[in-house]
Amino acid sequence: MKPDEGQTNIPETSSVITRYLRNMDQREEKPNQQHSSPVYVHNPHLNALKDDILYHFSLGTGSHNLPAMFGDVKFVCVGGSPWRMKSFIEFIAAELAIEEAKSEYPNICAGTDRYAMYKVGPVLSVSHGMGIPSIAIMLHELIKLLHHAHCTDVTIIRIGTSGGIGLEPGTVVVTKQSVDATFLPKFEQVILGKTVVRSTDLDQSLAQELLQCSKELNQFETVIGNTMCTLDFYEGQARLDGAFCSYTEADKQEYLNKAKEAGVCNIEMESSVFAAMCKLSGLQAAVVCVTLLDRLKGDQLSSSHELLQNYQLRPQMLVGSYIKKQMKAKAEHS
Amino acid sequence: MKPDEGQTNIPETSSVITRYLRNMDQREEKPNQQHSSPVYVHNPHLNALKDDILYHFSLGTGSHNLPAMFGDVKFVCVGGSPWRMKSFIEFIAAELAIEEAKSEYPNICAGTDRYAMYKVGPVLSVSHGMGIPSIAIMLHELIKLLHHAHCTDVTIIRIGTSGGIGLEPGTVVVTKQSVDATFLPKFEQVILGKTVVRSTDLDQSLAQELLQCSKELNQFETVIGNTMCTLDFYEGQARLDGAFCSYTEADKQEYLNKAKEAGVCNIEMESSVFAAMCKLSGLQAAVVCVTLLDRLKGDQLSSSHELLQNYQLRPQMLVGSYIKKQMKAKAEHS
Repeated sequence: MKPDEGQTNIPETSSVITRYLRNMDQREEKPNQQHSSPVYVHNPHLNALKDDILYHFSLGTGSHNLPAMFGDVKFVCVGGSPWRMKSFIEFIAAELAIEEAKSEYPNICAGTDRYAMYKVGPVLSVSHGMGIPSIAIMLHELIKLLHHAHCTDVTIIRIGTSGGIGLEPGTVVVTKQSVDATFLPKFEQVILGKTVVRSTDLDQSLAQELLQCSKELNQFETVIGNTMCTLDFYEGQARLDGAFCSYTEADKQEYLNKAKEAGVCNIEMESSVFAAMCKLSGLQAAVVCVTLLDRLKGDQLSSSHELLQNYQLRPQMLVGSYIKKQMKAKAEHS
Repeated sequence: MKPDEGQTNIPETSSVITRYLRNMDQREEKPNQQHSSPVYVHNPHLNALKDDILYHFSLGTGSHNLPAMFGDVKFVCVGGSPWRMKSFIEFIAAELAIEEAKSEYPNICAGTDRYAMYKVGPVLSVSHGMGIPSIAIMLHELIKLLHHAHCTDVTIIRIGTSGGIGLEPGTVVVTKQSVDATFLPKFEQVILGKTVVRSTDLDQSLAQELLQCSKELNQFETVIGNTMCTLDFYEGQARLDGAFCSYTEADKQEYLNKAKEAGVCNIEMESSVFAAMCKLSGLQAAVVCVTLLDRLKGDQLSSSHELLQNYQLRPQMLVGSYIKKQMKAKAEHS
């Protein structure tokens, strides 16, 4: 890391970041000076493993020095698309001005095509593919990675796309509660063939801070609301345009209106297991998704490519602004 | 397509393919001469769509001539990893010798990073990511694509990796039935918040033909058995090496042994919805997965990178051999 670079362009930010990073260095030398929150695993069997292979990242405790590679991580952003997570790291690098502009950020998981991972300063950006099983594999390995790397006080934010309910397309939703297809705030995990119910609580203060950031940015509408998390994009979200559809437009409207009455503002496919796993591991977590369309008005994305691209930048901008603000605040209070 | 090329290298195959392709062309001109099986969608709403946007493929009926691009597709191979599906198309192109060796096969879905798609002659190769939701999105759009392209008599095979139960690592399993985490042959689809149960039957004659191909290849062990399909890779498959694990080694062994008693030979994460959706759309379907380890003996992949790479080629080799044999047989009987 070269904290002083970029100073001529964004002098205020750069000096703040410089102070933040120096304070972080000092903190690492005196770990007992501040109360810090670790990343928990809940698995006694891990102690018996000589090496822990994080297979889907192509990383491992035997092959990589995880504390050296990731020990300074404070913010993790995750999203479905590898391209988006690469563009996020480029965006955040420019925003924080902590490294000189690079033409290329290397994919830390280059040994596999399951996920992509990028890092700049204290920010890690990881792709998770689509759906609960795909993000769950990533989160198991990410939580172990952060634990093995002895990371502390980590905030994790999912930035994604979603279908909105009764919102203008382009509106950003910060999730209050993640609910299932029956509008209940729970995630069902099958363990040894039996169903275990887990809480999908997210950090309410983090959600409020993100909302406040959006007000300060003042560039797009952001709301706090419930997010419905489904196992399927077509029939599971009452779409009329899948290969199979056995219900009517009226059935669809009735279902989506019931969701709206239950406080559901948007629908996506990863928030429930994300909330459940982050809560179990002690990570401060939020879900920030932009709505690409209003599902009460249609199912297919009819907006132009350019407009959709612009919408997809909004969660990045909001989270980038939050991270910058946090780093500035920590630098000032240290 | 240039069917005559590659003739000097593999003359027998090449002439067979040439005849096959000529016969296919003649068949297209006289569609009523043979009984052919279409690809079904079950959605009356599709007729009302002016354009059908296959969003996650970055393709659509308004923007692409799907019959021209895909009308000749007879074999579709799908697998989790985009790299593997690219390597499959290169392998099959060389195997069938229907095109000159290319240095690069273009990704038909280059406009998105959700899935990758490659085509050579009558063979389409598509990636689907990890887990039921991810493959389900792909299959909805693939089934619509094949339907819009007026494809007939399509065989679809998932080639993947899996954890074996009581099998030597490297053994290939052709799925008899896909079962859930309680060993029942069913897939639960949530529609408008209500659970609908779908059959996970696969084509038994196709499974037998694939087994026969493996015998003829005589390069690795192949068995027919049940495949357990789970929503989670760690706790859902009784692994002891996830971020969370609340059960003992004895609990794990008991669960996996019960699975073995129920005829389960391997565990993966996509077969149930694959079987259910292919059955609904009238596609002749099979699942061919190699086992990368014996889960009764461990959870982490301890084999060398080279050996694992070799194992992953086996489903490709088997399916390649099947496709070649089918094309030869059809050419001879036409």
